[in-house]
Amino acid sequence: MKSLAERPLKGIITPLVTPLLDNDTLDRKGLETLIEHVLTGGVHGIFILGSTGEATSLTYRLRRELVQAACACINGRVPILVGVTDTSFSGSLEVARAGAEAGADAVVVAPPYYSAPGQSDLLAYFARLVAELPLPCFLYNIPSCTKVAIGIETAVAAADLPGVIGLKDSSGDMNYFNRLLHCFRDRPDFSLLMGPEELLAQSVLAGGSGGVNGGSNFAPRLYVDLYEATLAGDLKRVGELHKIVMKISMNVYPADKASGYYLKGVKSALSLMGICSDVMAEPFTSLDAEGAAHVERTLAEVGLLSPVFDSR
Amino acid sequence: MKSLAERPLKGIITPLVTPLLDNDTLDRKGLETLIEHVLTGGVHGIFILGSTGEATSLTYRLRRELVQAACACINGRVPILVGVTDTSFSGSLEVARAGAEAGADAVVVAPPYYSAPGQSDLLAYFARLVAELPLPCFLYNIPSCTKVAIGIETAVAAADLPGVIGLKDSSGDMNYFNRLLHCFRDRPDFSLLMGPEELLAQSVLAGGSGGVNGGSNFAPRLYVDLYEATLAGDLKRVGELHKIVMKISMNVYPADKASGYYLKGVKSALSLMGICSDVMAEPFTSLDAEGAAHVERTLAEVGLLSPVFDSR
Amino acid sequence: MKSLAERPLKGIITPLVTPLLDNDTLDRKGLETLIEHVLTGGVHGIFILGSTGEATSLTYRLRRELVQAACACINGRVPILVGVTDTSFSGSLEVARAGAEAGADAVVVAPPYYSAPGQSDLLAYFARLVAELPLPCFLYNIPSCTKVAIGIETAVAAADLPGVIGLKDSSGDMNYFNRLLHCFRDRPDFSLLMGPEELLAQSVLAGGSGGVNGGSNFAPRLYVDLYEATLAGDLKRVGELHKIVMKISMNVYPADKASGYYLKGVKSALSLMGICSDVMAEPFTSLDAEGAAHVERTLAEVGLLSPVFDSR
Amino acid sequence: MKSLAERPLKGIITPLVTPLLDNDTLDRKGLETLIEHVLTGGVHGIFILGSTGEATSLTYRLRRELVQAACACINGRVPILVGVTDTSFSGSLEVARAGAEAGADAVVVAPPYYSAPGQSDLLAYFARLVAELPLPCFLYNIPSCTKVAIGIETAVAAADLPGVIGLKDSSGDMNYFNRLLHCFRDRPDFSLLMGPEELLAQSVLAGGSGGVNGGSNFAPRLYVDLYEATLAGDLKRVGELHKIVMKISMNVYPADKASGYYLKGVKSALSLMGICSDVMAEPFTSLDAEGAAHVERTLAEVGLLSPVFDSR
Repeated sequence: MKSLAERPLKGIITPLVTPLLDNDTLDRKGLETLIEHVLTGGVHGIFILGSTGEATSLTYRLRRELVQAACACINGRVPILVGVTDTSFSGSLEVARAGAEAGADAVVVAPPYYSAPGQSDLLAYFARLVAELPLPCFLYNIPSCTKVAIGIETAVAAADLPGVIGLKDSSGDMNYFNRLLHCFRDRPDFSLLMGPEELLAQSVLAGGSGGVNGGSNFAPRLYVDLYEATLAGDLKRVGELHKIVMKISMNVYPADKASGYYLKGVKSALSLMGICSDVMAEPFTSLDAEGAAHVERTLAEVGLLSPVFDSR
Repeated sequence: MKSLAERPLKGIITPLVTPLLDNDTLDRKGLETLIEHVLTGGVHGIFILGSTGEATSLTYRLRRELVQAACACINGRVPILVGVTDTSFSGSLEVARAGAEAGADAVVVAPPYYSAPGQSDLLAYFARLVAELPLPCFLYNIPSCTKVAIGIETAVAAADLPGVIGLKDSSGDMNYFNRLLHCFRDRPDFSLLMGPEELLAQSVLAGGSGGVNGGSNFAPRLYVDLYEATLAGDLKRVGELHKIVMKISMNVYPADKASGYYLKGVKSALSLMGICSDVMAEPFTSLDAEGAAHVERTLAEVGLLSPVFDSR
Repeated sequence: MKSLAERPLKGIITPLVTPLLDNDTLDRKGLETLIEHVLTGGVHGIFILGSTGEATSLTYRLRRELVQAACACINGRVPILVGVTDTSFSGSLEVARAGAEAGADAVVVAPPYYSAPGQSDLLAYFARLVAELPLPCFLYNIPSCTKVAIGIETAVAAADLPGVIGLKDSSGDMNYFNRLLHCFRDRPDFSLLMGPEELLAQSVLAGGSGGVNGGSNFAPRLYVDLYEATLAGDLKRVGELHKIVMKISMNVYPADKASGYYLKGVKSALSLMGICSDVMAEPFTSLDAEGAAHVERTLAEVGLLSPVFDSR
Repeated sequence: MKSLAERPLKGIITPLVTPLLDNDTLDRKGLETLIEHVLTGGVHGIFILGSTGEATSLTYRLRRELVQAACACINGRVPILVGVTDTSFSGSLEVARAGAEAGADAVVVAPPYYSAPGQSDLLAYFARLVAELPLPCFLYNIPSCTKVAIGIETAVAAADLPGVIGLKDSSGDMNYFNRLLHCFRDRPDFSLLMGPEELLAQSVLAGGSGGVNGGSNFAPRLYVDLYEATLAGDLKRVGELHKIVMKISMNVYPADKASGYYLKGVKSALSLMGICSDVMAEPFTSLDAEGAAHVERTLAEVGLLSPVFDSR
């Protein structure tokens, strides 16, 4: 049993999708199947209520229900991170406390994202929020959703706040990530986690701590294998696995498609693999039949529809 | 007593600030004083839980409390609009229902703003949401906060949904507003309301229905007078009053200052006038002493600190 | 005969399209016909080598040829402005000197637009450039093309440079324009000209000096009449003419169409009216048949294809 | 002697700065010293008139002079690429022809960048331009300067045009680059070159052809060594050299400084090393004394001011 006592948090942290029956009803059976699927795949942690988990689309009631159900199911087998992606300070604390009570290990805090603050206001906000959090926390940089990016200097300053133990970067800006690695080169206990899976191998080769990759919902072993091959410096294997990651990226969630396509693709894949339903929370709807057929072909080509998928 | 039975809604609708004692406590006394202040100033409607009301910074509990307290205090003297600015569909309905129960007249619905949908997804979202709303609704275009703008074609299509009775535009893009006026030229019952007060006179001259202007919190008479002078075609008076509006804009909430400065300026002015406190909800803090002193000088220069301010 | 000795420059300044036979050949006959057309329509000035003139798409040889041909043809009947929209300082001076030699009255200077400078670098750049210009100059704010906007404070500071006599704003940001009007309220000699014709009436009502409106290439009288009605405070007539302007805007150069559509629409209209060809310089091509047919219908509906168009 | 007959072009291609005596005068002595410096450092190609070469700030006369002087000096020792970064089609051909006449091997073509075209217009533009080019060409993706990015599908389609042999990506978007690598996986003759040096190692590890890195002006050996270590799969050495690259990046051209800081930093370093002057073309000015002192300290720390710098 791993815990956050071992720092930095490393490896593949699955940003768990939230299986739904409808817009406001949790698919509890799907949730359990999904958790067993990713744990069997060897992931090193689970991040619930992230962007991939459609956190901001869910009511607080459903968020609390999910936190409790997921923590109970995971039951300490891997560290659990809970997303605190909120525009309200008090609302943020509510979710964080629900996580602490349910046994989560840390929270992941995004900037407030309606009236986006400037860098100095953002740092002050983090300072006030972190002081009241019941759990250690990761900063969450995702400017495509929050508008404001966590600047390098802001990240460095925030990292000195007691309880801040890492940063998840979903900006897709590898140079930003490289600059963070440079700034944190003397902080080996600080986790720097990469969001976009297309950048997993490159970020770990540069010293990153691991990935919070949506594809690890349906193909956990693939991302775990890629992480481990990268750590081992087995560049041939890294190349082979990275090619599969890119094939999935180009076909399951093509960047040039509509907004939300990534989320739709992940849920569609999970549904096609029989893990949970593809019901999306508002404002999105499930992938249409044509899109789903293309996802299915891709999964078949990379062997993800065969009875026991294993990238080895 | 006015009601939304008279359409379109016209005039000055105050986007009411939310007076606070602290981050999660309503200043009920301040709220009542503020409401009486703007009603005495002659405003034609009140919009609670808008961006100026810091809606997204408040917990749902506090939003419900505010809706009830404000509706009870206004008590039908002017139409009441309630902002539904949420990333969650079910959360949106919660707020809308609280408004309906408390006696509000309409809701104002912004696009979901974390994972911003494209235009076709946005239109479909509005269609599903509007179908479940218990009150008539206005669309709320505020891309600086929501990232996605309500495109002209989307607005035109959404306006055909039963219950959609107007649009509030806070984009600051006057040509967008002019294009809307062109597209809705045969829909005299549809309200097109301007957010930024600097554009109030120009939008009404072009046929707009009125303004939802933050400055009308502390200077309601000024905006009402400007609106009426514009309607009357009294260009000399329009010019004089517009000059005061610009002076306030340049000095109370200068655009080149930090994010949140507009909100800080409005609350600072209200505090200086003794109407309510300048406590801001997270992630913002009150204006500092230097900023407040500059606001005070400006208010004095335009006569807003004198016992009975009246722009006439 | 008007000259820039009368300041500020006021009225409708046509941003002249550049009639072409092919990508690098001037349509001299078309140029002369166009100039006579707009002068007959009563415009108060002509601006060559602006964005509407496709300046940046033309070789320096062709720019010089155009400057000479246009100045010779206009021959002092109205003030002539020459666009200096260049990424090279020395190249900018070349064009400005060609203008001075040919008898132009002023230049219009845009920020350098490849490696966009910050505000302090931009101001310093203007200071060095203006010091070497052989003619008075207008600043040209067009951030959609240059990326960098001329900030309010930069504009105010640059206006103190000897020879800077006005600013043309094509940002479409009316509040920016209103703020400029506020800042220049004690500088009655300084021209503040509006680019987008949809904002002409509203900007002049607020105190603007006039418009540099692309539609005045094919419908000069319409914009002159609108300008004059606005000056006269004849709001009824302003409303009628503004409606025609909006109809043209929505149909001849719809904003939701591809980039370049505005330019294509203007040249298509001129071609349909028999004034000059619709050949576009690279990277754009002429409007396709369907687009041109829609332009033609619109022109017919607003009476612009009848033998003698006159908005009166 | 290498030539472009060997495809794809691989390795470190120096985007040569343009040594200047003043805004419009070439520093011919500095140019020769610089060329010998980078060739001694082992670079595999030289790219003149790129963004780092301040191409768009130079007059056409100076561009031609530079092309001739650089080609004469390089004299076939490495392949020479000439930047064609222009808003004018005819102007683009002028520069390309000057390159061909002087003996360059290829041109590098950026999208037109004033009135940025959409993707279909951009592809059509490339098709027409490439058909008239006298040399093979690379596409140049640099949306921070040109506003429009070359979309993945546009790049794939343009790569089928005869003469298009590669793409230089300066977007800084590693996932875009990874997607390109995926799409061109069956085109081993097509060069995919990385602009930002912070991403050099990661892009080559993923299969990229090399880098066009500004730092190779003053530290050519460092980038050549890093490229070769990456090719060899020597991850330990890659890590050590990448750390130096990041130290240079963070200190010589910090991203959070003003626009143009990267260019200023490169020229400052060259001046401090005695290679050429730090004169910048408009709109930029040389680094101030404080900035230069910081650059000097950094160069000293990484050993670049010692008599014979060699990263080995």
